[in-house]
Amino acid sequence: MTTTFLYKSDPVRGRQWAEVFRQHAPDIDFRIWPDIGDPLRVRFLAAWEPPADIATQFPHLEVLFSSGAGVDQFNFAALPPTLPVVRMVEPGIVRGMVEYVTHAVLSLHRDIPAYRRQQQAEQWRPLPVRPANERRIGVLGLGSLGQAVLAQLQDFGFDCAGWSRSRHAIDGVQCFAGQDEQAAFLARTDILICLMPLTDATRGVLNAALFAQLPQGAALVHVGRGPQLVNDDLLAALDSGQLSEAMLDVTDPEPLPAGHALWRHPRVHITPHIASMTQPLSAAAVVIDNLRRFTAGEPMVGLVDRSRGY
Amino acid sequence: MTTTFLYKSDPVRGRQWAEVFRQHAPDIDFRIWPDIGDPLRVRFLAAWEPPADIATQFPHLEVLFSSGAGVDQFNFAALPPTLPVVRMVEPGIVRGMVEYVTHAVLSLHRDIPAYRRQQQAEQWRPLPVRPANERRIGVLGLGSLGQAVLAQLQDFGFDCAGWSRSRHAIDGVQCFAGQDEQAAFLARTDILICLMPLTDATRGVLNAALFAQLPQGAALVHVGRGPQLVNDDLLAALDSGQLSEAMLDVTDPEPLPAGHALWRHPRVHITPHIASMTQPLSAAAVVIDNLRRFTAGEPMVGLVDRSRGY
Repeated sequence: MTTTFLYKSDPVRGRQWAEVFRQHAPDIDFRIWPDIGDPLRVRFLAAWEPPADIATQFPHLEVLFSSGAGVDQFNFAALPPTLPVVRMVEPGIVRGMVEYVTHAVLSLHRDIPAYRRQQQAEQWRPLPVRPANERRIGVLGLGSLGQAVLAQLQDFGFDCAGWSRSRHAIDGVQCFAGQDEQAAFLARTDILICLMPLTDATRGVLNAALFAQLPQGAALVHVGRGPQLVNDDLLAALDSGQLSEAMLDVTDPEPLPAGHALWRHPRVHITPHIASMTQPLSAAAVVIDNLRRFTAGEPMVGLVDRSRGY
Repeated sequence: MTTTFLYKSDPVRGRQWAEVFRQHAPDIDFRIWPDIGDPLRVRFLAAWEPPADIATQFPHLEVLFSSGAGVDQFNFAALPPTLPVVRMVEPGIVRGMVEYVTHAVLSLHRDIPAYRRQQQAEQWRPLPVRPANERRIGVLGLGSLGQAVLAQLQDFGFDCAGWSRSRHAIDGVQCFAGQDEQAAFLARTDILICLMPLTDATRGVLNAALFAQLPQGAALVHVGRGPQLVNDDLLAALDSGQLSEAMLDVTDPEPLPAGHALWRHPRVHITPHIASMTQPLSAAAVVIDNLRRFTAGEPMVGLVDRSRGY
């Protein structure tokens, strides 16, 4: 019986996936939602938002792939408990994130937001330049994205550190682990980059108590998930001068509605969740490789540990 | 007789030079303008703007060092014709320029100026992301700064080319040379970076005729010298859509006065000549090394060829 791979996400990208499957996995019946064909043949599903009745609609489903880097949009309680769930780990996502975060850090490092405000005032006033090795970067979250970002920032000579729940060792990066070491990590961080997954443990962590542990005038680059940030605490920290600038690629809610206070704060710089986008061609290639691994009984890249939520 | 090295530039930086000389060239009498001591002992002068009567005031002057990357601020006609003139080529300048240009290119590549305007309109609208290898970067000027910038941009995967007066060969960079090849260089350039020295040949080169040879919607990063750009031609090219954005670190005049049209154009992004600053410690070390070379009869790094003006 033919195996169906069902894709339920942006259809424009879906057609690019279809082309990759046609070339590299021609035996698989690749279909784009809502053209599901025979639901009994659907063994694999790639989705941003899976259908609510996934277990009854696709009784032979064997793997659920997220079409993006995160899986926080999935309601795990509604999924069959033993269904393997796979995050998207692909080079296109990594490259986009490295570009975005490098841009954000260099902007902050070289005072670009201040120069934008000076331009509005038609004021020509050079500000002191600090060498990169005197600028302390701290990355919250040391997964594949955090590590790639740190490698690029090290290349510019920044003083780099990282924090994660579990212990990591990265050449040239001061690594902190667990709650016990978080205060020391924050105390030495001038530019904080949030790259953590959204879980119950990280919801609301970017709050007043955390900001207070950063050096006065520190800056935030938020490329994790919107609900990790307490909006009112951010605005208060910017108004008090505890934080100098915030670059937000994610917000809560998304899309951020017109009239929201975050849009209007002169030290908040918003992009609409564009830091990193799955590149359809490389994403489809990664999924095909994971199908091969699954069939061969090898571990899939990006397999989610449901107990930690990512 | 003691040799005096006279420094005539920013005195705060001068005190950092003095410390480097004290440690690494203790035999030299290092003095900061206007404390010139005995003018007959001044054999070396580092200046941004040398005194007008340099030949009569310092009859034994042997080398003039620029305290910055350029020498276009020097009036060569007023200098003794055989006096060696040396540009500042030092790692601090290079690092600063690489940071600034990388920031500028990534901003343009990832549509940050458009998102700033959307933020003012409180509008959440993701724009399509292009992979770096589909973004064509072109650097005008392949000196030490241009080459360092290209090396970094190649690392991000951009499609890189360069143009210079004379033929260069750089791994992975499509190199164009001379007037005959300039049109082909411009026709394939989405983001144009000007890193040429200011000479009679480059004054006013960033003009309507050049902009018309770029693809429609190209962007400009100007980190050369202000007088290379024809301001009115830039504003017209932005208004017609021939150019999409311009990032200017140099302007004519400098400082740009309040009320100038460049400040007010929504697609012009100005920083006050801060892309690259001489780092006093590494600059002084480079000058001391050049003194050693001069004494040993070796060629100094950054020695200016007066016939070409850089």
